[in-house]
Amino acid sequence: MLMIPGPTPVPERVLQAMAKHPIGHRSADFSAIFGEVTENLKWLHQTKNDLLILAASGTGAMEAGIINFLSPNDKVLVCTNGKFGERWGEVSEAYGLNTQYVKADWGQPLDPNAIKAALDAGPDIKAVIVTHSETSTGVINDLQTISSYVKAHGALMMADTVTSLGACSVPVDEWNLDVVASGSQKGYMIPPGLGFISVSEKAWEAYKTAKLPKFYLDLGPYRKNTAKNTTPFTPAINLIFAMQSALQMMRNEGLENIFTRHDRLKRATRAAIKAMGMPLYASDDCASPAITAVMPEGLDAEQIRSVMKKKYDIILAGGQDALKGKIFRIGHLGFVSDREVLTAIAALEATVIELGGKTTPGSGVAAAAAVFTQK
Amino acid sequence: MLMIPGPTPVPERVLQAMAKHPIGHRSADFSAIFGEVTENLKWLHQTKNDLLILAASGTGAMEAGIINFLSPNDKVLVCTNGKFGERWGEVSEAYGLNTQYVKADWGQPLDPNAIKAALDAGPDIKAVIVTHSETSTGVINDLQTISSYVKAHGALMMADTVTSLGACSVPVDEWNLDVVASGSQKGYMIPPGLGFISVSEKAWEAYKTAKLPKFYLDLGPYRKNTAKNTTPFTPAINLIFAMQSALQMMRNEGLENIFTRHDRLKRATRAAIKAMGMPLYASDDCASPAITAVMPEGLDAEQIRSVMKKKYDIILAGGQDALKGKIFRIGHLGFVSDREVLTAIAALEATVIELGGKTTPGSGVAAAAAVFTQK
Repeated sequence: MLMIPGPTPVPERVLQAMAKHPIGHRSADFSAIFGEVTENLKWLHQTKNDLLILAASGTGAMEAGIINFLSPNDKVLVCTNGKFGERWGEVSEAYGLNTQYVKADWGQPLDPNAIKAALDAGPDIKAVIVTHSETSTGVINDLQTISSYVKAHGALMMADTVTSLGACSVPVDEWNLDVVASGSQKGYMIPPGLGFISVSEKAWEAYKTAKLPKFYLDLGPYRKNTAKNTTPFTPAINLIFAMQSALQMMRNEGLENIFTRHDRLKRATRAAIKAMGMPLYASDDCASPAITAVMPEGLDAEQIRSVMKKKYDIILAGGQDALKGKIFRIGHLGFVSDREVLTAIAALEATVIELGGKTTPGSGVAAAAAVFTQK
Repeated sequence: MLMIPGPTPVPERVLQAMAKHPIGHRSADFSAIFGEVTENLKWLHQTKNDLLILAASGTGAMEAGIINFLSPNDKVLVCTNGKFGERWGEVSEAYGLNTQYVKADWGQPLDPNAIKAALDAGPDIKAVIVTHSETSTGVINDLQTISSYVKAHGALMMADTVTSLGACSVPVDEWNLDVVASGSQKGYMIPPGLGFISVSEKAWEAYKTAKLPKFYLDLGPYRKNTAKNTTPFTPAINLIFAMQSALQMMRNEGLENIFTRHDRLKRATRAAIKAMGMPLYASDDCASPAITAVMPEGLDAEQIRSVMKKKYDIILAGGQDALKGKIFRIGHLGFVSDREVLTAIAALEATVIELGGKTTPGSGVAAAAAVFTQK
């Protein structure tokens, strides 16, 4: 039972769709599927922008989103408050961009005013890179406000929405997000291997003069081919089958219901952890709808994960880099329901008690149930 | 029924393996699978070199193979005799390499002596790029001889083996191939989405000073992580499950048997086409073991493909670029047996007769059967 922020649980019908025999990717049959998937991804992104699909992980998609619209020595503002924000800084530096940073501590949200100040001080900034939901800490950043400052400035707004798309509303057009990248093994409910990226007209304008070298990640040919419901290179055909099935499920559920469900899972998980007397790593006002990070005082987070796995076959994520051993992370993203949260919390209570932690038996499950039974 | 050079048919047990629920990619269970897959890929490549797995198509793997070992303005020799050779020239130029060409006409093999002459004239050439089996024309190049000249010169030998690995012997160590790239939807018998790349010590030496920018395709972190049976970014977990199953099947069949089977399928297909009185696009001495290209005189190749698909549900590949409408291509690569070739030839005979072509009914099937029943 996967309760990590990716890969997330995959519905049986999606696994079955993926197990169909591949068809030729240059066929009319495949084009019809590819066209449907592209349209439904635009629906999920709430956008009229181009929506491109890569055979790559989310990191590949995000790299494409950065390098297609910039030239060497361009000034970019990378906003970091966790491992993934830092990764986009590494990408930026690997390509020789003039990389400026606005940083917040891990576990804290980015301060939109600090970003505004950096923009005011840097009229030549070409792009701002923000991780919406920071998977490493369970913090969600105020992308809407940040994007409004970036629009006023004129730079391109590039967002990593790997663990926010499909968990909460990311209205790409309304928020003026120029480049939005994500990966398939998260809110999309399918296995890893596909990356998604939406690109605004403003970004395509920048593409025309962008000089960073690229080929497999060159989005120009993807745009041209996507308009004809095909791809420049061989697509990951069976993952496209899976995506078709998962998006049909998402359309059946509806955007509002999907977001309400994730919000409820987040609130229940946090209420349970609080009731158990364990400190939450991120505060309520910046809590990711996808991941809850817990800092178990007096207990080793890795030991908790180990017992959860061995005794209850529930997989939690650990802390990354400096947080290793200090936090564990509960994913409640994608194909997850109230039942999974109750299960995970019940097992966590038993684990904490087994390891000698202080908690009132039943307190976590009771608190989660209270959220689920709220009118 | 897929008779194209990718995607190729996928065995039922491989599809079933792929449909298993994903597991966490940072788990010991996944590491064990990943380690097995890596080892078996080395066996297939007949190499002790590093073998790295990317979530990308074959093009992504080949691009990684080029850009990791070179710096801007480095002189590279790109050898082209078809669409894929030309693609590596495009990659090379996109990254600002000093790109020299040795060309042969489409349908003809590369001339190793012309490559030797170019090497003699260019002591500063850093790498030579050759497509082993040119998928667009069904021509196989003499990679062994070319590689011997490259080794004598000192440049890096970079090979696209997308439609040769798994179809004929590509002894990476014996032939001194420094960089070898391929994709999963070919001889590997699984759907598209994985790229493979083997890297020699000599190439890693060049990596140390290589300056082309890269991040997702930076092979250094893949090497470091593969040594620990893991990956720098989220792998395409379910395609790894599929690869594990397919490689187990390949080990059961054995390298020699796999190569003998592909050689037999090639000879049977070519004998059948000749007996039907249709011209083969590539001559016998440079015929790919994976694809046979046919130039139907007096008939439209696209019409043949259309009838084959509509009436017999058999998918053949068309010609690419200048060859569109002039040739069709029969893939006999991967999970293909004598039966599929007999089926395709029988349907092709009926199609040619229906379209008013001249052929002796039964001649093709008889010629293929003669190859299959040879002692």
